[in-house]
Amino acid sequence: MAENGLPARAGLLGAGVIGSGWAARFLLHGVDVRLYDPDPDAPRKVAEVLENARRAFARLTLARLPAEGELTFVATPQEVADGAGFVVESAPEQEGLKRELLAAVDAVAEPQVVFASSTSGLRPSQLQLDMHYPERLLVAHPFNPVYLLPLVEVCAGAKTGAAAVERSAEVYRALGMAPLILRKEIDGFVADRLLEALWREALWLVNDEVATVAEVDDAVRLGAGLRWAMMGTFETYRIAGGEAGIRHFLEQFGPALKWPWTKLMDVPELTDELLDRIARQSDEQADGVPFREMERRRDDCLVAILHALRDQDVGAGAVLAGWERRLAGGALTGAAPQDGEGRQLHHARVQAEWVDYNGHAHESRYLQVFGDATDGLLQRLGVDHAYLEAGHSYYTVETHLSHLGEARAGDALEVSTQLLGADPKRLHLFHSMTRAGAPEPIATAEQLLLHVDTRAGRTAPAEGEVLDRVLALASRHAALPRPERVGRAIALVRGGSDPERV
Amino acid sequence: MAENGLPARAGLLGAGVIGSGWAARFLLHGVDVRLYDPDPDAPRKVAEVLENARRAFARLTLARLPAEGELTFVATPQEVADGAGFVVESAPEQEGLKRELLAAVDAVAEPQVVFASSTSGLRPSQLQLDMHYPERLLVAHPFNPVYLLPLVEVCAGAKTGAAAVERSAEVYRALGMAPLILRKEIDGFVADRLLEALWREALWLVNDEVATVAEVDDAVRLGAGLRWAMMGTFETYRIAGGEAGIRHFLEQFGPALKWPWTKLMDVPELTDELLDRIARQSDEQADGVPFREMERRRDDCLVAILHALRDQDVGAGAVLAGWERRLAGGALTGAAPQDGEGRQLHHARVQAEWVDYNGHAHESRYLQVFGDATDGLLQRLGVDHAYLEAGHSYYTVETHLSHLGEARAGDALEVSTQLLGADPKRLHLFHSMTRAGAPEPIATAEQLLLHVDTRAGRTAPAEGEVLDRVLALASRHAALPRPERVGRAIALVRGGSDPERV
Repeated sequence: MAENGLPARAGLLGAGVIGSGWAARFLLHGVDVRLYDPDPDAPRKVAEVLENARRAFARLTLARLPAEGELTFVATPQEVADGAGFVVESAPEQEGLKRELLAAVDAVAEPQVVFASSTSGLRPSQLQLDMHYPERLLVAHPFNPVYLLPLVEVCAGAKTGAAAVERSAEVYRALGMAPLILRKEIDGFVADRLLEALWREALWLVNDEVATVAEVDDAVRLGAGLRWAMMGTFETYRIAGGEAGIRHFLEQFGPALKWPWTKLMDVPELTDELLDRIARQSDEQADGVPFREMERRRDDCLVAILHALRDQDVGAGAVLAGWERRLAGGALTGAAPQDGEGRQLHHARVQAEWVDYNGHAHESRYLQVFGDATDGLLQRLGVDHAYLEAGHSYYTVETHLSHLGEARAGDALEVSTQLLGADPKRLHLFHSMTRAGAPEPIATAEQLLLHVDTRAGRTAPAEGEVLDRVLALASRHAALPRPERVGRAIALVRGGSDPERV
Repeated sequence: MAENGLPARAGLLGAGVIGSGWAARFLLHGVDVRLYDPDPDAPRKVAEVLENARRAFARLTLARLPAEGELTFVATPQEVADGAGFVVESAPEQEGLKRELLAAVDAVAEPQVVFASSTSGLRPSQLQLDMHYPERLLVAHPFNPVYLLPLVEVCAGAKTGAAAVERSAEVYRALGMAPLILRKEIDGFVADRLLEALWREALWLVNDEVATVAEVDDAVRLGAGLRWAMMGTFETYRIAGGEAGIRHFLEQFGPALKWPWTKLMDVPELTDELLDRIARQSDEQADGVPFREMERRRDDCLVAILHALRDQDVGAGAVLAGWERRLAGGALTGAAPQDGEGRQLHHARVQAEWVDYNGHAHESRYLQVFGDATDGLLQRLGVDHAYLEAGHSYYTVETHLSHLGEARAGDALEVSTQLLGADPKRLHLFHSMTRAGAPEPIATAEQLLLHVDTRAGRTAPAEGEVLDRVLALASRHAALPRPERVGRAIALVRGGSDPERV
């Protein structure tokens, strides 16, 4: 067991959509995976899911992840147990098959290894019937894509031990997930009960030709679905109750629940005609976008939603933030980063709300980031709370911005800052902004700042240690090459600007 | 009827959670609202909702909205019809009451005025029974918060005319919403069928003590709810079907639908005990956060999710993007103000959140205001919704900012903009910002913009009427005196900048 709460190796049974997602989630957290699936196509499918998962994680977080684990396909179920500290079963939803696989691995795995079944509906009390160590078996039901969604429902069976529940929850938290430990064992657990209810009604609406597949989807994602990403149904209705609260809401709308709206007591017959209709409408909705590409678009949306919620510290965003802090191992303290030549570095990520009607960040947001970089430099120079309180500060008096590329939502930005010159009253700075990892700047800013006496409202020389640091840094940076775009003026003649460049 | 597709005035019946939301949505789009609600507390409640809506809109978009409409409370239902081009009924969910209100206003409103009922379940064929002009009545069912969520279900009754449906859809699109026009009239329409199914199951789970209110909510928002914000249930399952697609998924999971998972055939009895349990658990979940504060947190999350989806051009984000383009291009009503010599004028007020640790607006906010002034000029030059949609735009490539004074929270700012020069690919602008009424500029900005083909991602000449207007305005502005600060470069020598000035 590694210090981070994760097993060094996990054994996985089944490499369908859910099994591949588990494989990706473990591998990206540095856990080696031994995987059994009789499908000869499994290695290709897992590789594709893993590729999408790597791409999603690169967008999801700036946190440093451990080196990716090693993936090994094995030829028999028993071989997944070899050295595995955790076993996950994600076989097709057939009780007999699952019980057989679990019993086979149970016979060879170390007794303390936890077995988690991904079943979306079968009871753990049934699944553990053939096991020698039934106390280690529980259900841990995840949601697709398993590598991005935090929810995992943990359900104990009649013979499951408390230690297995605790251990599994520890593993899921270390994987950035939010285990929901169920109070009772029921068919379908909690989340699938809710999902199935909605899904059944959706099938009726299409069956009765009230709505198409795409219309049903819009009825969800343009309305209540937006709320469900951050609050569930109870909190939503608490707010809908207005000042009077949820009890008022229940009393007001409760009777409507008994109106004969829903057809949920029956299941529509999945006739060939209905299957054909759904498949045809779904094809129209997909509009030729291939399945893996659709997965990537979904993942991009999920990452963006997770970032949005992280900013608000709500729900899945709070889970993400906690996981990142855990990965970072505590907040960064100490010196601000510098590049190899001593330029100050500042990092930022383009927020979705910075984007204007042209589809990239508004021009003012580039200056916001440059302003933050300037602030970082000022802090390094000793402009701290006490210095400001004493009535000193630096004010920007002139800025020359050049836009050489476009920053889009989610882009990770790096600004490097060079002190071009300084005297007791002035700082002359040059910022260069790149997309992290790319060499070409997408924007630059040259700035002149004046040191001010904020009480008198006029320029005044910098003092004490701040002045010492300013002059020392200016002298060190004097050795750096002078950036090409220093000293530019705008003019509508060739040479003054570069009109061929967007 | 204004050119933007909106009525100049709307008449609203009912100021509960939904009616207040409609009032806010109309007012923030510049529509005057006449509102009837017998609740003596209605003005206070509407004012609170409107305050939250203003706050949400300020975060939602950088697009310029028209000046807010005027809100008038009236003493009788009939008075809402006075001058109203559109009537919205959001009374409590009682058929008799709704029919009575609709008939009263129907008797006095101009015959062509559309009546939209916000009912979440009553059939329009019933609601129109007492009306003289039943062809104008339809249901337009919105979702809370009405000022942020785009979905509105439009359902015609037996006697509803096609013109009313078309007209209402036009109004909702102009309000930034996505009308879903239903094919059939059924109780509960489409969205509430889906929501009720889930809600009913949620009540069972709490009733049976399988989960608490907070656990049910987590089971939604940490899993499927994140997906529902961007895709509905069909697209989700299409992807879950993996390579084999949705038909495979249906065939694989279809049988599970018939397992006895759901209790939806019955409705749990809303006993005092169950009501008490839900209210208590909901109070625990809310943890003392007051209702209006909870609304603001919800709105912040929704705005963040909408921004996230806008960036992906998916679902509600695509609706938001289309609305912003419409506002950016189409809000042009009459000539923008100009000074006596033909310079473009733009007005703004310094928001409290713009202020940084130095006590005045952050440097990036000056550029935000200059950017808005540029957008105003571009609109005057004919860069409208259609021009942007056709793949043309102007991008800023270079900006030279000078700070000559300080803008503080609450300051009214005026920016005057002069076109220094232009050719088919370029605009050379000079902005000067003053505190309204004061002659001395507090900041100036010189900018170079390039005309771009946004699809190809490169410069291209402006076209048609836009180019004509650009050249005509450049020629008129050529007669203006050249501002003193044009063509500046930054340098750390006297003369290059002015270090005595703060």
